[in-house]
Amino acid sequence: MLDPRLASDSCFLADGPLSQLRLMDDSRFDWLVLVPRVDGVSELIDLDDDGQRLLLAEINHAGELLRACVPCEKLNIGALGNIVRQLHVHVVARNHGDVAWPGPVWGAGTIQRLGTPARGQKVRQLKENLQLGFWGGIALGA
Amino acid sequence: MLDPRLASDSCFLADGPLSQLRLMDDSRFDWLVLVPRVDGVSELIDLDDDGQRLLLAEINHAGELLRACVPCEKLNIGALGNIVRQLHVHVVARNHGDVAWPGPVWGAGTIQRLGTPARGQKVRQLKENLQLGFWGGIALGA
Repeated sequence: MLDPRLASDSCFLADGPLSQLRLMDDSRFDWLVLVPRVDGVSELIDLDDDGQRLLLAEINHAGELLRACVPCEKLNIGALGNIVRQLHVHVVARNHGDVAWPGPVWGAGTIQRLGTPARGQKVRQLKENLQLGFWGGIALGA
Repeated sequence: MLDPRLASDSCFLADGPLSQLRLMDDSRFDWLVLVPRVDGVSELIDLDDDGQRLLLAEINHAGELLRACVPCEKLNIGALGNIVRQLHVHVVARNHGDVAWPGPVWGAGTIQRLGTPARGQKVRQLKENLQLGFWGGIALGA
């Protein structure tokens, strides 16, 4: 069950072996979120070993996906969860000159939603670059 | 070779299988940093598989160490590196009412150094709770 705030601030890209891969609906950043399909866990370190191993693989794939698709001088990876307690991991492409640089994206200003055409375009671009053998549950028609 | 800013803002606690475990010299937070002893790597996803596996184990141990020693309503784990490019991972104990809550610690206000007695006390407390079989290189006399 996806947290309502995560659901409203991001959109579905694909299902990985452990997590849902989602795109943050924020035009300011290229920002992915991994949400493990595991109930009742808030902390990465409370996932079991298999879950952690899968999540780590997904973080790698998400980072490579950003590198393949968008400018990415630096990746920022974070598991915070101070507001939304459902375990989720952010993987964000960062660049000199983005609006939060060199600070973190979390808590930086206000979300600027993409709007339908831009969101659709970004989702398509990312889906086209997903490694199909890894991301099993891609809704290609979405 | 430890980045000079990391060296100046934190102090040594122990050597893990991959990383140096350090305490951030900031009285506002209970904040650990893992710095892999690997040259020329800025991104977690550019560590090889063995390195990532070891780093993940260290993140688990660092999180459990904070839980054992300090109030820890939520762990925040982050690999940013926008300013200091040497790969390092933050593991921070967070609580309602800390000065940055619920925002991130990165970029929040100004470091408030612990001062010698408080730093010594905190370092001792953390070292006493380190799992000795895992953290091989603990300078117990330091």
